Amino acid sequence: SGLVHIKNPHLDAMEEDVLYHLDLGTKTHNLPAMFGDIKFVCVGGSPNRMKAFAQFMHKELGLEGDGEDPADICAGTDRYAMYRVGPVLSISHGMGVPSISIMLHELIKLLHHAKCRDVTIIRIGTSGGLGIEAGSVVITDMAVDSSFKPRFEQVVLGDVVVRSTDLDRGLMEELLACSKDVPDVPTLVGHTMCTYDFYEGQGRLDGALCSFSSEKKLEYLRRAHDAGVRNIEMESTAFAAMCGLCGLKGESLRGLL
Amino acid sequence: SGLVHIKNPHLDAMEEDVLYHLDLGTKTHNLPAMFGDIKFVCVGGSPNRMKAFAQFMHKELGLEGDGEDPADICAGTDRYAMYRVGPVLSISHGMGVPSISIMLHELIKLLHHAKCRDVTIIRIGTSGGLGIEAGSVVITDMAVDSSFKPRFEQVVLGDVVVRSTDLDRGLMEELLACSKDVPDVPTLVGHTMCTYDFYEGQGRLDGALCSFSSEKKLEYLRRAHDAGVRNIEMESTAFAAMCGLCGLKGESLRGLL
Repeated sequence: SGLVHIKNPHLDAMEEDVLYHLDLGTKTHNLPAMFGDIKFVCVGGSPNRMKAFAQFMHKELGLEGDGEDPADICAGTDRYAMYRVGPVLSISHGMGVPSISIMLHELIKLLHHAKCRDVTIIRIGTSGGLGIEAGSVVITDMAVDSSFKPRFEQVVLGDVVVRSTDLDRGLMEELLACSKDVPDVPTLVGHTMCTYDFYEGQGRLDGALCSFSSEKKLEYLRRAHDAGVRNIEMESTAFAAMCGLCGLKGESLRGLL
Repeated sequence: SGLVHIKNPHLDAMEEDVLYHLDLGTKTHNLPAMFGDIKFVCVGGSPNRMKAFAQFMHKELGLEGDGEDPADICAGTDRYAMYRVGPVLSISHGMGVPSISIMLHELIKLLHHAKCRDVTIIRIGTSGGLGIEAGSVVITDMAVDSSFKPRFEQVVLGDVVVRSTDLDRGLMEELLACSKDVPDVPTLVGHTMCTYDFYEGQGRLDGALCSFSSEKKLEYLRRAHDAGVRNIEMESTAFAAMCGLCGLKGESLRGLL
């Protein structure tokens, strides 16, 4: 049917669903009218960049007006920012798995309440590269954890539940095909490693805490590279797991700093 | 000496330290002049609330001017917001352990470079309560994980390192004594549970995913309450672990929604 799957039997019995962190709700907003025709959702960490992306999309789609000052649909909260441009939503998710997972829970319910069909969701943004040129873009074929395993461990009521991190292969190939039209941006497919810490978790030597040598760091990053990891960031496993469970075609596409 | 401890032998050898997510650095800013006399740091999730807290502190401290429009010291980035009011810094940290940990790494280095002494750091904000009245405030005596254990598991180069989550007991008692002056706000001491997910991790029935019954949820929350947990949020274990390791007197103080 192309609809978003909500995997929560309690939701139908609720009289009202407040999407608290988005400042939206089923009683306060007409979600089907506001969002029913959305086909693409692009998400990234920084609110300013997601606003800039909305401005860029406005031009690309040739929409009326200058699109310079898109309205933040979530203006009533500063947790996330959301912009709408034609059939595209541009939303920020902050940094890290917990932050993106709150947004995705509420976004997925939003798409469900709005009865959206055949939605594609793409995570865009920056990441650290492994053995590849700055300025390249990595399309994720597999999101892996810090042990290079394609899994997302989620604690549910104190118990660890392991979820798959498969992304949509067809979408990956479509994006790779599109990249041929932008020959000056080197684009490759690779595994994306997701960590919970930017400094110690990614082998940086310049945090407030660092207990390892430069050699140990290089040895770890070499093992990651050997396992197929080409970039490192902080949200991909949760993104892949939640999109997969809820039937959203999802991909991650990240530039390298 | 009261100085902040940096546990990173590589840092001294670095010519420049860029605090990337704060848009500050040792070569671009005179950190001792800007921050050397800071004695208190208050941190919370939302940038708007931390601005409101700076405005409130301005009045409380009886500083000159109306303090209505404090300058965001991190205005060059939208990752975090930072305000300074007299000897107090007010900083946002976003949502979740990864987001607060990036901020704390860079804040701790900032306090180190600025040669600050005897700094007290207090996390303020909201949380979910367990068996206590809305509007109460919980002062954390122990930050625990989703198994109710006082530990923070940090992955360093793919290996799990377990860290203690002790908070400063003297500061806890001082804050509790202060709370006697505000009799209309019920204040209590209890364990604070830190989770990585707001919906499934905290037993909510209204996420996009929910695989448990209302009974299972209540059973888990009852076990948490029996273990001494009085509120639930998403940053306390990382906060406690990092403050403890770096010699910052830290406490967490959260109102209940």
